[in-house]
Amino acid sequence: MSGSTFGVLFRVTNFGESHGPAVGCVIDGCPPGMALAEADIQPELDRRRPGTSRHVTQRNEPDAVEIVSGVYEGLTTGTPICLLIRNQDARSKDYANLLDTFRPGHADYAYWRKYGVRDPRGGGRSSARLTAPMVAAGAVARKWLRERHGTTFTGWMSALGEIEIPFEGTEHIAHNPFFAANASLIERLEAHMDTLRRAGDSCGARIEVQARQVPAGLGEPLFDKLDADIAYAMMGINAVKAVEIGSGFGAVRERGSEHGDELTPAGFASNHAGGTLGGISTGQDLVVRIAVKPTSSIRLPRRSIDRAGRATVVQTLGRHDPCVGIRATPVAEAMLALVVMDHALRHRAQCGDVALPLPPIPGAAPGT
Amino acid sequence: MSGSTFGVLFRVTNFGESHGPAVGCVIDGCPPGMALAEADIQPELDRRRPGTSRHVTQRNEPDAVEIVSGVYEGLTTGTPICLLIRNQDARSKDYANLLDTFRPGHADYAYWRKYGVRDPRGGGRSSARLTAPMVAAGAVARKWLRERHGTTFTGWMSALGEIEIPFEGTEHIAHNPFFAANASLIERLEAHMDTLRRAGDSCGARIEVQARQVPAGLGEPLFDKLDADIAYAMMGINAVKAVEIGSGFGAVRERGSEHGDELTPAGFASNHAGGTLGGISTGQDLVVRIAVKPTSSIRLPRRSIDRAGRATVVQTLGRHDPCVGIRATPVAEAMLALVVMDHALRHRAQCGDVALPLPPIPGAAPGT
Amino acid sequence: MSGSTFGVLFRVTNFGESHGPAVGCVIDGCPPGMALAEADIQPELDRRRPGTSRHVTQRNEPDAVEIVSGVYEGLTTGTPICLLIRNQDARSKDYANLLDTFRPGHADYAYWRKYGVRDPRGGGRSSARLTAPMVAAGAVARKWLRERHGTTFTGWMSALGEIEIPFEGTEHIAHNPFFAANASLIERLEAHMDTLRRAGDSCGARIEVQARQVPAGLGEPLFDKLDADIAYAMMGINAVKAVEIGSGFGAVRERGSEHGDELTPAGFASNHAGGTLGGISTGQDLVVRIAVKPTSSIRLPRRSIDRAGRATVVQTLGRHDPCVGIRATPVAEAMLALVVMDHALRHRAQCGDVALPLPPIPGAAPGT
Amino acid sequence: MSGSTFGVLFRVTNFGESHGPAVGCVIDGCPPGMALAEADIQPELDRRRPGTSRHVTQRNEPDAVEIVSGVYEGLTTGTPICLLIRNQDARSKDYANLLDTFRPGHADYAYWRKYGVRDPRGGGRSSARLTAPMVAAGAVARKWLRERHGTTFTGWMSALGEIEIPFEGTEHIAHNPFFAANASLIERLEAHMDTLRRAGDSCGARIEVQARQVPAGLGEPLFDKLDADIAYAMMGINAVKAVEIGSGFGAVRERGSEHGDELTPAGFASNHAGGTLGGISTGQDLVVRIAVKPTSSIRLPRRSIDRAGRATVVQTLGRHDPCVGIRATPVAEAMLALVVMDHALRHRAQCGDVALPLPPIPGAAPGT
Repeated sequence: MSGSTFGVLFRVTNFGESHGPAVGCVIDGCPPGMALAEADIQPELDRRRPGTSRHVTQRNEPDAVEIVSGVYEGLTTGTPICLLIRNQDARSKDYANLLDTFRPGHADYAYWRKYGVRDPRGGGRSSARLTAPMVAAGAVARKWLRERHGTTFTGWMSALGEIEIPFEGTEHIAHNPFFAANASLIERLEAHMDTLRRAGDSCGARIEVQARQVPAGLGEPLFDKLDADIAYAMMGINAVKAVEIGSGFGAVRERGSEHGDELTPAGFASNHAGGTLGGISTGQDLVVRIAVKPTSSIRLPRRSIDRAGRATVVQTLGRHDPCVGIRATPVAEAMLALVVMDHALRHRAQCGDVALPLPPIPGAAPGT
Repeated sequence: MSGSTFGVLFRVTNFGESHGPAVGCVIDGCPPGMALAEADIQPELDRRRPGTSRHVTQRNEPDAVEIVSGVYEGLTTGTPICLLIRNQDARSKDYANLLDTFRPGHADYAYWRKYGVRDPRGGGRSSARLTAPMVAAGAVARKWLRERHGTTFTGWMSALGEIEIPFEGTEHIAHNPFFAANASLIERLEAHMDTLRRAGDSCGARIEVQARQVPAGLGEPLFDKLDADIAYAMMGINAVKAVEIGSGFGAVRERGSEHGDELTPAGFASNHAGGTLGGISTGQDLVVRIAVKPTSSIRLPRRSIDRAGRATVVQTLGRHDPCVGIRATPVAEAMLALVVMDHALRHRAQCGDVALPLPPIPGAAPGT
Repeated sequence: MSGSTFGVLFRVTNFGESHGPAVGCVIDGCPPGMALAEADIQPELDRRRPGTSRHVTQRNEPDAVEIVSGVYEGLTTGTPICLLIRNQDARSKDYANLLDTFRPGHADYAYWRKYGVRDPRGGGRSSARLTAPMVAAGAVARKWLRERHGTTFTGWMSALGEIEIPFEGTEHIAHNPFFAANASLIERLEAHMDTLRRAGDSCGARIEVQARQVPAGLGEPLFDKLDADIAYAMMGINAVKAVEIGSGFGAVRERGSEHGDELTPAGFASNHAGGTLGGISTGQDLVVRIAVKPTSSIRLPRRSIDRAGRATVVQTLGRHDPCVGIRATPVAEAMLALVVMDHALRHRAQCGDVALPLPPIPGAAPGT
Repeated sequence: MSGSTFGVLFRVTNFGESHGPAVGCVIDGCPPGMALAEADIQPELDRRRPGTSRHVTQRNEPDAVEIVSGVYEGLTTGTPICLLIRNQDARSKDYANLLDTFRPGHADYAYWRKYGVRDPRGGGRSSARLTAPMVAAGAVARKWLRERHGTTFTGWMSALGEIEIPFEGTEHIAHNPFFAANASLIERLEAHMDTLRRAGDSCGARIEVQARQVPAGLGEPLFDKLDADIAYAMMGINAVKAVEIGSGFGAVRERGSEHGDELTPAGFASNHAGGTLGGISTGQDLVVRIAVKPTSSIRLPRRSIDRAGRATVVQTLGRHDPCVGIRATPVAEAMLALVVMDHALRHRAQCGDVALPLPPIPGAAPGT
């Protein structure tokens, strides 16, 4: 299989290409009886939609979602929910020159080696545009989790290239084009992006995403740990090169006496674990950080080869995000929600009868 | 399901507990006709076996593997290969006190919340002992990949707690108890571990693992990318908190003009990608780094609660690795091999007929 | 999950409802580089399309298929192929009265018990209309199997209610509205259906489907036997109540000395096995028979209950097939093709390197 | 994969060969907290054990089961349950002559074509001995279903070769070597088998299996219908060639006005459906019938070929069941239980919150 289905019980099958007639997904396994309409999904799509600032690709896509199946009279029926998003602003001619050569750092070469054929228009299947259906599917998962468990998901950019972005507060995220949880640094980020764009280059970014009110007990030890599936989901986002949970790489330098989060009747005393122990959620906040590499499609000339193996030089035309990480925040939130949703269903399948005398103890804030 | 099966086509189902009669696995989907005997598997098990130095748990397990099925007259038959490893040196009484309390940083609490019941002896199912069957399964995958594609896997420790371990050469790895690719730092590492052990504390570690001669074209874009499945596999190893591929978190600060590996007729000019583009292998070396958290079972007293929610103090008896990362190297190699093996089979299922005019170009060494 | 994905490596995810905006499917795992256009799929859809004779539902649907993704410049790219079929002639008001009651023999009651909500329009998700996407997906599988292995699939009706339809020749199948491999009995079948329709009743049918030139070695013993997956596929077709392979129930009365097909240098001497031994294809023709129950939506009044559990009487309005079995033949062919396709890919994944001195011996015709 | 895992959420991975050191399985996904001991499993294994009468193979196997993992202090922990059954009475020399030739009607030829190698001892992987682990796994599923839902499973032989065995009552099943629900016909069945055995031939059988108190709402429409998964499970049993549910092939001749089971406030008026509508359980009894072909290993000489394709004659030595159907009854019960168990968990995963005003109406007895 070409692996286009995500999840075990809340299954999202993704389809489409950047410049095909449409992108979309089929959600299989959604619980029945939940109120659902396009209006529940569109706001999330609008957050990751291109063309919303001068710092992202200028491709103009409304990303309007159509619910094709699985909903009757405003309620999910438990049958597959097909979500369709038509492509409207494709300029395929910009990519004619790419059929024969491979952009350094891009999937061009790998796709060609794997399939022998590829759709070069806008990156075809490898385009970040394919994250749109996941954001749509994530919106469905987020609605169910919020209504059923009170779970919420929040992400922000914590670094843009060399610029570290201190966390000031989640209230700032919606008021700048970078999803920064910061109000004081925006001008500097804007200037950085303008310089970069003029130079025809690109940069990376680091995104942090957290989940609150995650039910305790989610995750399957060996091998479908909650954090293992989170790592899989995050690394599956275009351009992501690293994933860490809780202390992450910082845990290398921590002592056991420091890293292990103490438990008290009042709750966990800290959250170095980032919300999971032994691959299972504890009720603490999930804390995930990812690294997004710089966009490979840049205007600067790079050495490459053509399909005959001859040396050539590539310069990418077309419209691209100078920092693909900017739009990655709502995508990371959606993927995290899809993992939690899937495990919420998996957990009640096996452990639906488990009754404990003690309710979960409160989780500690990540900072502590 | 409780998620104990790893892989899609080369499927490893893991079973057992730390102090049960045995641990083991069933490998389903191994190609038929490959010569296989216990002697092909035992050397890998011996590398991760406990009791090999004073710096790891002193539990004495021969970890002798028995091939229970799937092999006839020395050849794999294509039917399930059951590998059984008997537990021999369990001291369950050491854990009696743990049934009622939860070690900070340990899976105790999470398992109890999920299942309502748990086997506390030696960590039960959450013990690192369950990595033994994966190392055994990995040995089978490594043999097939080496014979069929010439692929090899090598890992080493690159940091022990605060101590960075410079890479000097893979020839050193087998000659120190830390799997360090370094000869000059061993005494310092030994001293560090002795101090730590006396203090009753533990520390983390960073492991790097690489694969050479990986066929190009492995990996399924959206969602089963080769790197996504690698992240899933690595984060599934006990105590791992972070995974990065190629530049990893370093990619945040890189420019596109720096990160994108140029292609030349002589091969890739560098390897910031760490072997994959768009989730598909390029023929470059796979480069993976993981963070292993400090062991949660330490002698120092920690605050915790009991099953009634009352405050208590936990001190862990029993035998434990003061740095569980020390034995993680052969495990990480095995998990990486299992991912590559699974995708090698998946790739030829779908793309077995793809024929290209140009052979894969050589990969660059990770360093470059 | 709600189980809407069919297959392991050639995966078809089905979506839609009878009266929703569209029905369709996503094919994941199709080998790349195969020429594919709507024209390759439409003829199969036209064979099962409603309204083609007075003996089937008069709902008028062109069933025009749109390839939404996975094909570039006329070639499959190896990425998901989304096939969309818009619904055009829905008359939902005919079903208003069904929201509150349950048709005897229909899925109404079961869906309500499972989901609590249901889409009653035209049977919603339980409508035979959902077989259209499978016929479309089957056409893709048939094209690949024909071009790669020369495999072909042919089905016909062997009984309509009490009327047995002797096999005269496959050349007759396309020239009557019943897919009968018979030319002499058509008038009687027409008369039977006219009587039935006037009476407001319905009848069952038996369909036989065969595959020729099936590669030897397909099927996974325990549990995904080729015949087990065929039984699963056939029983998954609406209204099917029984499946048999080869001698089927006739094998109960056969002796071992009669049933076991002898092998000779010239090939198999007979085909009681129906093409599989031990769950694996032998190269003989696959021979499958299914029973299709009578349509449950009939005009005759039947006793039932309403959602409050009160006694009521149901009479079905709307347009229905008086014998749903009539249009089942192309569906059964498609489902058989999907099973063989999936196993062809699965087989080469594991056994792609198997080389035998002896080519498969010829299979015997089913009759023998 | 070689398909050795059965089920989606209650997953049974089967391993072993007829003459290897052991056969067994790993059950993954069993709900935690259920009391379980070998004594809960052994009685079911004893029912299908060989050597219990002169009418089955005289191989003497105690089939003693060992619980290797997943149970702690008498309770399931929710982690994988490995069940091991050692082989003790293998006489492999009897099969030396089979490595070079193929028994007509046996898996010998198909295995060789698929894998190129095979274990000929006692049929290796294709032996009916591999049903023992399924009976063991089925016992675990039956215990949970009985305790949680009151569901029970009962099977019997309804035909032995040409001899139809009228149903007289389930109380007779345990008191004859044929699992016949009949007391008056046993002598005739014994005589039939004695004649057959002397002749060195074999015969087929028909088995009926039913489930009572099956929760309503189990099964996933398109494609994992409850009846589709039942067909898959039954056709996956060695030597099974046909499966029918409810009216089965009889439905071909039924009218809609006869087949559709009417609903009344007192319950269903009949059970032609056999317990499912639209692939979902209704609360009626599940009614399944299967055809078991005659044993292919017979003493009578048959024509065959050797591995070089040369004509030869095969006579099977070794010990075999002259009617493999005799021991198929407990196997069919177990497989049906495994399907219901898996769907019980799947159902509550997706529909665990569905609440209906009306409790399920009573099911009708199959006879009615």
